[in-house]
Amino acid sequence: MSLSEFDIITRYFNQSGLCADPTLHRNIVTGIGDDAAVIKVPRGKELVLSMDVLVSGVHFPVNADAAMIAKRALAVNLSDLAAMGADPLCFTLGLTMPDPQPIWLEAFTTGLKESAQQYDCPLIGGNLSRGPLQIAIQVQGLVPSGKALLRSGAKPGHDVYVSGQPGRAGLALEYLQGKLSELNAAQEAELRSAYYCPEPRLALGVSLRGIASAAQDISDGLLADTGHLAKASRVGMVLQVAALPLAGVLTAIHSSEAVFRMVLSAGDDYELVFTAPAGKKNAVAKAAREVGVKVTRIGKVVKGSGVTVMDLTGMPMDIEEEGFRHFA
Amino acid sequence: MSLSEFDIITRYFNQSGLCADPTLHRNIVTGIGDDAAVIKVPRGKELVLSMDVLVSGVHFPVNADAAMIAKRALAVNLSDLAAMGADPLCFTLGLTMPDPQPIWLEAFTTGLKESAQQYDCPLIGGNLSRGPLQIAIQVQGLVPSGKALLRSGAKPGHDVYVSGQPGRAGLALEYLQGKLSELNAAQEAELRSAYYCPEPRLALGVSLRGIASAAQDISDGLLADTGHLAKASRVGMVLQVAALPLAGVLTAIHSSEAVFRMVLSAGDDYELVFTAPAGKKNAVAKAAREVGVKVTRIGKVVKGSGVTVMDLTGMPMDIEEEGFRHFA
Repeated sequence: MSLSEFDIITRYFNQSGLCADPTLHRNIVTGIGDDAAVIKVPRGKELVLSMDVLVSGVHFPVNADAAMIAKRALAVNLSDLAAMGADPLCFTLGLTMPDPQPIWLEAFTTGLKESAQQYDCPLIGGNLSRGPLQIAIQVQGLVPSGKALLRSGAKPGHDVYVSGQPGRAGLALEYLQGKLSELNAAQEAELRSAYYCPEPRLALGVSLRGIASAAQDISDGLLADTGHLAKASRVGMVLQVAALPLAGVLTAIHSSEAVFRMVLSAGDDYELVFTAPAGKKNAVAKAAREVGVKVTRIGKVVKGSGVTVMDLTGMPMDIEEEGFRHFA
Repeated sequence: MSLSEFDIITRYFNQSGLCADPTLHRNIVTGIGDDAAVIKVPRGKELVLSMDVLVSGVHFPVNADAAMIAKRALAVNLSDLAAMGADPLCFTLGLTMPDPQPIWLEAFTTGLKESAQQYDCPLIGGNLSRGPLQIAIQVQGLVPSGKALLRSGAKPGHDVYVSGQPGRAGLALEYLQGKLSELNAAQEAELRSAYYCPEPRLALGVSLRGIASAAQDISDGLLADTGHLAKASRVGMVLQVAALPLAGVLTAIHSSEAVFRMVLSAGDDYELVFTAPAGKKNAVAKAAREVGVKVTRIGKVVKGSGVTVMDLTGMPMDIEEEGFRHFA
């Protein structure tokens, strides 16, 4: 028996908890089931929109668990909202897949529903069709007008911060590719979680509104993404290797040189890198403490351009890796 | 030389005319270049959102012209806005492709730019990555609050209308698949245009606000999509074959039985099927005339469910084809 797109939508996608319910979600006027969705944007708010596409075999292993893929697909999009300081509102999904398998669809929509509920970000519409497995998601979020955290506000003298412990997703990829063999069960669990369940820093992003001068999430790697911040703000940035937060799982597995390279260059951690005026140091610490996220000051904004990394002896490092690049 | 995603965005996508310019588009606060786009929704308006994904080899021939694909991808999304009575605001693009080819990218972005300008619907962001060729587009539109044309407002006694001359895209597909050989140059041109350049009925949709009781665009086929309207409105509909508007190119090629089947069942025409109270007959005619679109009354809304088609002798037809279905 073959499932039609209408069957699939009815059986798997159109379920309470996953889809928006206009009686519960007062800014959703019309959800799935019409030609398009209709939403309200409350007065004094702006709408923040971000689309990401995950491709089987490129952004996740071909045989990855469907629930994990679903969670990751929503999380990487929500991470963009976090980087803008926006609160999630709703998402749309464009799913293409080969022959639809009930077991896969059940797992995928269960994972998606869990994340939709966790982040209060329901599905409002989208598109389903036959094709190679790809997941396009667009998230919509709300931010008070004029308060979005852009990449362009860093000024010389500001501090550079990073949340969490970047680098673990890079190590996780090595693990998932079978390159690491000496891990214990706890380390394996930590790495699987880091890769498949990155936690979008939504609460941190919101708490940094009015404090951070520039922000973005780390998808290409700390160094590359700091470079994007520097470029958009037309400034330079100097990072101190000695200040980088190092995850225990990284230092347990790799030499310090490999650890630094991974922290600086590995993508997909979805932590936030951001800047703030030096006078807001206490405000940053308070905001981070309130949302329970570790935040580390790792450098300074300077005049000029590009990102320089100082090694443990205070000398500029020669860094070649530039992070994850498509088509490169 | 291989192009990185940043090169591709800079060289091909980030160009005036294609991308939103916040100084010209006053509802676009932040376009491409940050973690997410930011838009304003003016007071008294609601935002209408629709995502469609076109897959190479499924929704267009593998070797289709890149400019044509781009135009079609935007048009099919704009058609959903038309069906809601919304004015286009902006769009996002998730493009996945194998090795990027400068000639293909040049043609694709040129086609996209032409359509973006034609419909005043600029690009505000998206995502580019390696993968099988797929084009995910989400369009955002604006509609006065509470005035979106939904599928659910048809009532018994209302008339059923269709715009244009559906069925040509189905014939075009037969032509593109090499199944038709006896066409002249004018017919070939008409069919290529019907398939690759469907004209979203945006002006008609807007002019029907406050007049139509239910509306949707024809993507799965007139019969199937009328069925969706009937289902959403919890009514039945009776269509008269004798009333169907027949394109000359169809009647020139096929027997009348094949023509009726194609008009009723072929998808991808992106005309509108809609209903309106009988008392609004003159208002419908005036709205259609003002925007220069042919509109034909093809049936009535009745109590009950499903769609019945009456043949030339007034007897219910036995129709098996149900239009384009994914996974069926």
